[in-house]
Amino acid sequence: MPIANEFSIIAKYFKPLAAGFTGSLNLSDDAAIIAQLPDSELVITKDAISQGIHFIGNEPPELIAGKALRVNLSDLAAMGATPLCYFLALMLPKNTSEQWLEKFAGGLKQTQEEFNISLAGGDTTATEGSLSISITAIGTVPKGAGLKRSGAKAGDDIYVSGTLGDSALGLLSCQRRLASSSDSPIDASLRWHDKDFFINRYLTPEPRIKLGEKLRGTATSAMDISDGLAQDLGHICTASNVGAIIYAEKIPISKCHPALVAGSGENHTDLTYNTRPRNECGVTIEKALTGGDDYELLFTAAADKRQFIAALAKPLNMPLTLIGQITQDKNIIILDKNNDILQLDKKGFAHF
Amino acid sequence: MPIANEFSIIAKYFKPLAAGFTGSLNLSDDAAIIAQLPDSELVITKDAISQGIHFIGNEPPELIAGKALRVNLSDLAAMGATPLCYFLALMLPKNTSEQWLEKFAGGLKQTQEEFNISLAGGDTTATEGSLSISITAIGTVPKGAGLKRSGAKAGDDIYVSGTLGDSALGLLSCQRRLASSSDSPIDASLRWHDKDFFINRYLTPEPRIKLGEKLRGTATSAMDISDGLAQDLGHICTASNVGAIIYAEKIPISKCHPALVAGSGENHTDLTYNTRPRNECGVTIEKALTGGDDYELLFTAAADKRQFIAALAKPLNMPLTLIGQITQDKNIIILDKNNDILQLDKKGFAHF
Repeated sequence: MPIANEFSIIAKYFKPLAAGFTGSLNLSDDAAIIAQLPDSELVITKDAISQGIHFIGNEPPELIAGKALRVNLSDLAAMGATPLCYFLALMLPKNTSEQWLEKFAGGLKQTQEEFNISLAGGDTTATEGSLSISITAIGTVPKGAGLKRSGAKAGDDIYVSGTLGDSALGLLSCQRRLASSSDSPIDASLRWHDKDFFINRYLTPEPRIKLGEKLRGTATSAMDISDGLAQDLGHICTASNVGAIIYAEKIPISKCHPALVAGSGENHTDLTYNTRPRNECGVTIEKALTGGDDYELLFTAAADKRQFIAALAKPLNMPLTLIGQITQDKNIIILDKNNDILQLDKKGFAHF
Repeated sequence: MPIANEFSIIAKYFKPLAAGFTGSLNLSDDAAIIAQLPDSELVITKDAISQGIHFIGNEPPELIAGKALRVNLSDLAAMGATPLCYFLALMLPKNTSEQWLEKFAGGLKQTQEEFNISLAGGDTTATEGSLSISITAIGTVPKGAGLKRSGAKAGDDIYVSGTLGDSALGLLSCQRRLASSSDSPIDASLRWHDKDFFINRYLTPEPRIKLGEKLRGTATSAMDISDGLAQDLGHICTASNVGAIIYAEKIPISKCHPALVAGSGENHTDLTYNTRPRNECGVTIEKALTGGDDYELLFTAAADKRQFIAALAKPLNMPLTLIGQITQDKNIIILDKNNDILQLDKKGFAHF
């Protein structure tokens, strides 16, 4: 059934998502009103995702909705913000069905509940092109406590959360062109509903909200990794006017079940965060350095914070790995296990 | 020249637009930070425009940029807010040239200066579809002073700013299918650069920011007319749980030069706000009631505010016309000059 009317869509699918936030004015006004919170600042980010660029298009609508919201929440996490509300502009191809929209709204609802955030406003419109979703997410930080990219100092440790490169491998899996060492394509039985670890990492990134909150006052700089570690570290170094040394062997990559590469389509319940054995895994150092869509946090902290940071990993249930140091010299140097400088073909992930 | 790199675009075209707003963090972070203003509330709106739906696509990029920002500013005006900053998500077809982008940024700059607003953040990405622009605009109002749709009371006067239906006629002109009384198409010499009044009203709507600010504490309800007076008045009546009587003859429509209908392409410098003679003008009552994209303010106020409102029109250089009254009865009744009930074929403008 095609979509009948913009207003019936809003009433049926979006008003319920806005019920938890008074400032949404029940989506009945021209704009939302956000009351000022004493001693707080608002952190605002806006990230769009487009079919064919940021997602394939045949993913379940719930997952597309979740990803659209999650990549924005990841920006809030990078600033150390606590999510407050979000705005949605949904540009729908004219043949979009109500069934699709119902599932999409369901994905938003689930993500809202997970991150304690409500819809505050937005716009639903038709497009002659492909599906695009623009979200503006708003969070709060105590006054002056927002994490920025510009505070890294020579001598600071460099950390990443989670594991890197999973999502790039997940995208390859989604595209059904993941190659094993013998270049055979993965088995077609690797379906969406296998909930495969890597595909899940690509489709459902994990905004590190709680980590960001804990890093207020501790991290000297932070950002989320969306275009690959190598490129994104460059942004911190530029903003902070410093350089960095990264030890490639320390970059955390997932240990994966050899079956994935062989293409059995098994569930990878035995996946653990582990940097070994690398040769069994589809995640290469290059992918970990340059793959997009990780949405892990990259942050720096003074060396005297090591104990504090190490103690965060367990309650947050994620590895926090020290991968290098900030240097006064402006270059970014990546050393391999022999302490030779590693050259990369591709410095990151660019959309153009 | 196609666009080389997302980051070079941001540095070259967008950072200069953000220089006036400290909270933008020079577009170098994952998000913007907005400091809290004592005794104020933030008003936030998000409206997207899409090629083929809200604009044709061959308009000068400056005008597309201006319209994208203006329709959002119009929502701020409807809430009585003073513009503060905005966020931009630009979804660009892959063949977009840098020349196009330079002009687009120029249009934003001009509009920013006119409304004293700065870019605070956003996202530029490629799309496989057509051009879409999503803007989130943020304004401020004194605490509790935001205008809403829900405060209209039986007996209140109903006003509109400016003239209605111009934009619908402008769209027809743009589409080169404006018909005269003899159904002849308008002359092709009605080019973009003729700066024709109606085309200009379609391409460059006028957000009624100053009017919205003045109506704080006076209007009992307000909204901007984007889907046609008849439909939008319905939103105020629903939100306020009231009805309305509108006198069609009082609806302000532009007096236009007969040459437009004849298709001479002359500049219409003699255009004045006047409701007569209607039979010379391409704007019909039906267009004024149902045409989209007017972006005039529709508002209600108690009868004892007539003098105050009448006094606003001259300094703001726009007509403010009393077109009817709010009623306890929930229906919306439109009366023609003989006090007969006017029936409309189409209650507004729907995108789906």
